[in-house]
This record gives sequence, C-alpha cells and structure tokens, in this order.
Amino acid sequence: MTTLSESKCEACRNDSPRISDAEAAQLHAEIPQWRLIAQEEPKQLEREFTFRNFADALKFTQQVGQLAEQEGHHPELCTGWGRVKVTWWTHKIEGLHHNDFVMAAKTDELYEQMQGS
Amino acid sequence: MTTLSESKCEACRNDSPRISDAEAAQLHAEIPQWRLIAQEEPKQLEREFTFRNFADALKFTQQVGQLAEQEGHHPELCTGWGRVKVTWWTHKIEGLHHNDFVMAAKTDELYEQMQGS
Repeated sequence: MTTLSESKCEACRNDSPRISDAEAAQLHAEIPQWRLIAQEEPKQLEREFTFRNFADALKFTQQVGQLAEQEGHHPELCTGWGRVKVTWWTHKIEGLHHNDFVMAAKTDELYEQMQGS
Repeated sequence: MTTLSESKCEACRNDSPRISDAEAAQLHAEIPQWRLIAQEEPKQLEREFTFRNFADALKFTQQVGQLAEQEGHHPELCTGWGRVKVTWWTHKIEGLHHNDFVMAAKTDELYEQMQGS
C-alpha cells in the first residue's frame, strides 16, 4: 500500500467528492498528530509545529510553502516565534479531500527531516 | 522628524512602558492601513496584504520574516493563497510598544516595493 507521504496530490475539481467521515477517520490514523477539525465547516486538518526560534519556524514555512507550490495544493501557514500552525483543507469543495491527508503526511515528513538535521 | 519606517526597533524589556492610547492614535495615522485591535487584550496591529498567487504571498512572508530577524522583533504571519495577514505586538509587555508601529511601517514599505517590482 502506498503511504500518504508517498502519494501525489491529484487534480481537484469543484465537483470532486469530499472525503467520507469513515475514510477520514481511517486516514487520520496515519497522521495522528494532526487535529481533525470537524465541529465546524469547512472541515480542516490542523497541527502546530514547534521550533527553537523564529528563524527555524520561518524556514519550515518556506519548505512547506515550496512543497505546496510543487503539488499545486496550498495550506494556511501561521508563523510565529518558535511555532508554525499548518492548516490543510480544499477550498474548491469547502472541506477535506484525500489530498489534504497526503499533504499533512508530507508536512510531518518535512518536520521530521528538519528535526533530524 | 524621523518617520516610522526610518526608525530602528529599540531593545524592549519586561518593564518597558506600553504605548499610551493617545500616542497610539497619533502613530496610527502614519500607518492608516493597519487595524489597531484595541477591543481585547493584548492590543495588536493587524493588516491583511493581498497578492496575485501563493508564491508571491510566501515571498512576502519570507521578506517580513527576514526583517523581523534583523530587528529582533517578531510578528505572526498567516500565509494563505494570495494573502498574508501580519500581526504585530510585543509579547514581553502583552501589548503595543512603539517598535510595533515601526515594524508595521516597515512592512508597508516592503509591500510597496514588492508591488512596484
């Protein structure tokens, strides 16, 4: 089975199906450190990453932003001193698509690489 | 008179005075496109900048972040597709310092330079 972080984002149209609650729950298990925001619309995936200073937080923002450009799928990135809150959702469908879980997993991977460097 | 964008941020201590409401109102006139958030504590300066795509928004985030590192004063930068919301306040005093108005003015200047390029 292809893991989320090995997957590529697929082209998303206005009529692409939102992910079902059951599938979301299943995929969520692969990215347990993300919060699945389901109480209010649109559903979103959110995680706050911590860093030892502002420069590292900014570097991570840059890396996630570059990844977003490569994949053609864009998050909200809130950068502060020692922290970046990343939120993924799919604007076109005002909710969660499989792509968002892929991007969350890839974001985790970038974070792990940065922690290890 | 030195304009805000020509000023440098001064070192801020835990006992540095918050800016007075009168002075804040006066300085706000120099950066009219910022919203002075005074209804709730901490007081903050906030402005949303718009861009034609995600890459430009990310580039602006990077520039404001580098400026923050140079000045030793750090904002919150929320980057999304075609927009960056910048929020300035001084954590040590849980409110607004003169430095925040300086940084807001410098942020405006970066935005104008980018629009002109």
